[in-house]
Amino acid sequence: MNNPVITLTTDFGEDSPYVAAMKGVILGTNPRARIMDLSHQIPPQDVRHAAFFLAGAVPYFPADVLHVVVVDPGVGSERAVLYVELGRSGHRLLVPDNGCWTWLPNAESAAQIGPTGARAIRVTEPRYWRTPVSATFHGRDIFAPVAAHLSLGISPAAFGTPVGEWVILDRPAYHQGPDRLAGEVLFVDHYGNLITNIPGGALVGFPPEQTRTLIGDQEVPRRVRTYAEAEPGALVALVSSRGTLEIAVTNGNAAGQLGVGVGTPVVVQRREAEAGT
Amino acid sequence: MNNPVITLTTDFGEDSPYVAAMKGVILGTNPRARIMDLSHQIPPQDVRHAAFFLAGAVPYFPADVLHVVVVDPGVGSERAVLYVELGRSGHRLLVPDNGCWTWLPNAESAAQIGPTGARAIRVTEPRYWRTPVSATFHGRDIFAPVAAHLSLGISPAAFGTPVGEWVILDRPAYHQGPDRLAGEVLFVDHYGNLITNIPGGALVGFPPEQTRTLIGDQEVPRRVRTYAEAEPGALVALVSSRGTLEIAVTNGNAAGQLGVGVGTPVVVQRREAEAGT
Amino acid sequence: MNNPVITLTTDFGEDSPYVAAMKGVILGTNPRARIMDLSHQIPPQDVRHAAFFLAGAVPYFPADVLHVVVVDPGVGSERAVLYVELGRSGHRLLVPDNGCWTWLPNAESAAQIGPTGARAIRVTEPRYWRTPVSATFHGRDIFAPVAAHLSLGISPAAFGTPVGEWVILDRPAYHQGPDRLAGEVLFVDHYGNLITNIPGGALVGFPPEQTRTLIGDQEVPRRVRTYAEAEPGALVALVSSRGTLEIAVTNGNAAGQLGVGVGTPVVVQRREAEAGT
Repeated sequence: MNNPVITLTTDFGEDSPYVAAMKGVILGTNPRARIMDLSHQIPPQDVRHAAFFLAGAVPYFPADVLHVVVVDPGVGSERAVLYVELGRSGHRLLVPDNGCWTWLPNAESAAQIGPTGARAIRVTEPRYWRTPVSATFHGRDIFAPVAAHLSLGISPAAFGTPVGEWVILDRPAYHQGPDRLAGEVLFVDHYGNLITNIPGGALVGFPPEQTRTLIGDQEVPRRVRTYAEAEPGALVALVSSRGTLEIAVTNGNAAGQLGVGVGTPVVVQRREAEAGT
Repeated sequence: MNNPVITLTTDFGEDSPYVAAMKGVILGTNPRARIMDLSHQIPPQDVRHAAFFLAGAVPYFPADVLHVVVVDPGVGSERAVLYVELGRSGHRLLVPDNGCWTWLPNAESAAQIGPTGARAIRVTEPRYWRTPVSATFHGRDIFAPVAAHLSLGISPAAFGTPVGEWVILDRPAYHQGPDRLAGEVLFVDHYGNLITNIPGGALVGFPPEQTRTLIGDQEVPRRVRTYAEAEPGALVALVSSRGTLEIAVTNGNAAGQLGVGVGTPVVVQRREAEAGT
Repeated sequence: MNNPVITLTTDFGEDSPYVAAMKGVILGTNPRARIMDLSHQIPPQDVRHAAFFLAGAVPYFPADVLHVVVVDPGVGSERAVLYVELGRSGHRLLVPDNGCWTWLPNAESAAQIGPTGARAIRVTEPRYWRTPVSATFHGRDIFAPVAAHLSLGISPAAFGTPVGEWVILDRPAYHQGPDRLAGEVLFVDHYGNLITNIPGGALVGFPPEQTRTLIGDQEVPRRVRTYAEAEPGALVALVSSRGTLEIAVTNGNAAGQLGVGVGTPVVVQRREAEAGT
């Protein structure tokens, strides 16, 4: 049997000792745990960033990995700590109940089909926590020791009580009309690429030669299949590796160059429809 | 038996190849070593930051882990390289002799009770080093190969000579009077939270309703138990996860908002005493 | 047998889910793989930075480690993906064919003696890829699954076709005359140290007391063996841990202080020669 893998996704940064403390606590309980950093650069308290991140990372892992997420603006409040197992994929997460895991593809399905789709345990059993639990650092005092005990094979049911409700994080809607797709920037990646919520599939009815793409009030002159189709510095639209419309500058930084970010409106519209708009 | 764990804490950053070179050297000598990053984002040459970091990280690890620390403004000088084993906790570190490890709780006790409290070896035996040793990169040429050989189970005594003295890093004092606690900011964490050197226990005699808290010349209006007790954006004082007074902005960045940092004075004083101050 | 080690070097940063997705894909194919981060902070699309980084990292690793490099401005174009094994050292890399690996000492020899010196496979066999392959994220869809399959022991020949030609990355030349060494800054490290392409060995004929060192139009007043020989803040020249001339500020940031960077000319010249220049 392989040693169990525990991944960490936090907004702790690496200049502070918080990630290291969690690693120490995990190893102290399960010395065989393989701890894997996913990110400690989630922007502070940015639950939406975490949700987008997890949806782009967790689906690629084998199901037996345990993903610990500590992006937790509500630490110390009554917000719950949840252990969740996704019904279809079997992915396992230990998360604050702030919806950070609910943009995972299977989480959405699970939430729609109710509590039998996804199994969630509200973590309430202090036997597995560090004592005393601090008011401000549940990553060290609750998440890490619970994750380590889970990785030892203790049944999730031992950690608390099953729940059928949880916080679901709103997802910005996009609108599809006969002549117009309207969405917004959902995520700015490390390169400054602007990932939108407009599904790539929706573009089929909007061929590039008949449409204009606008981000804010700036036009994106070209639609391409890959960055390399355009010269360096060109502003392009393409389908991202996540399957949605992306605005990018080939080998450049679109967010910086355009001065836009998360929430900026993005529209794809038919040219012939413009006069009537 | 589990494979041995070696942790790395440096100021090398990740854009330069220095951490990677150390990892290569360690694996080259002990392919079974489990290398764990604690931080490579200690600010350059900032021994105090490293000391605070280690004191918040090392105590949570099991004792058999070896912690390698390369924050080393004196590289190439006559400063020693030390292997230390803490008397009470058994924690093990390989460090430059600049005091970076001496804020660990057990290190202080050990230093107070003298050389029998902590065992330290001055690393002098070149048989375990890379040759030639560069003048500027002891992380690669001394720390990494010594750590790897230690992780193979070679007795620490083989690496050099026992020493009973070492550099102890000054710790800023705080002052406690009948009407006043006076300390300073010791560390600014990734969120901009301001961690002071005033022990949480000292606050017992200074209940919030009878005292004012000042950071520099700015008053902190509320004392809370946890960030979530105050609305986002509120400036609060609370006891940090390290057990000392912390000044924070709920879901915000106190250091940025107040324009203060390490060394800024922090005072907790009785309201009735103010007239007489 | 030890579990196989796969290292990752990318320009993905850690705020985006791209590194995590690669880790998931690798573990999904080979749960026993030990994944080791070398860097995800290569500046975006900076192949020269990657080349310098790899040359300072890979040589220190044991030969059986597999190094995966995704700094890939040409993603989605016709650029090849290469698996290379260096003839002398045996180091193994999976890289985009942009020359990022060709500054490795053994790579240079290999390229000079032709295809028998280094074995390279152009990765073309889609059986080992994720399907469908996205146009923009070959790290997840090609590099990660190919690396994982390689780590399972599948013969490199199964992944594509042997090739004897590849892109070789230009290396800026330095010039050595009887009275003058002229080179340039090749790399700025995390501390702001300026690493040049002038070999330390060439300095033997240019003793400090008879020469001046200039970076851009600024004179470097001292040549030392180690940073600690000069007081903090002093501008010094020394031989770097890579064996080439380095311009540094002791415990400071030379790049920031001088306002120079990659490409800035550096000259070492005899004093007696100056009148005649």
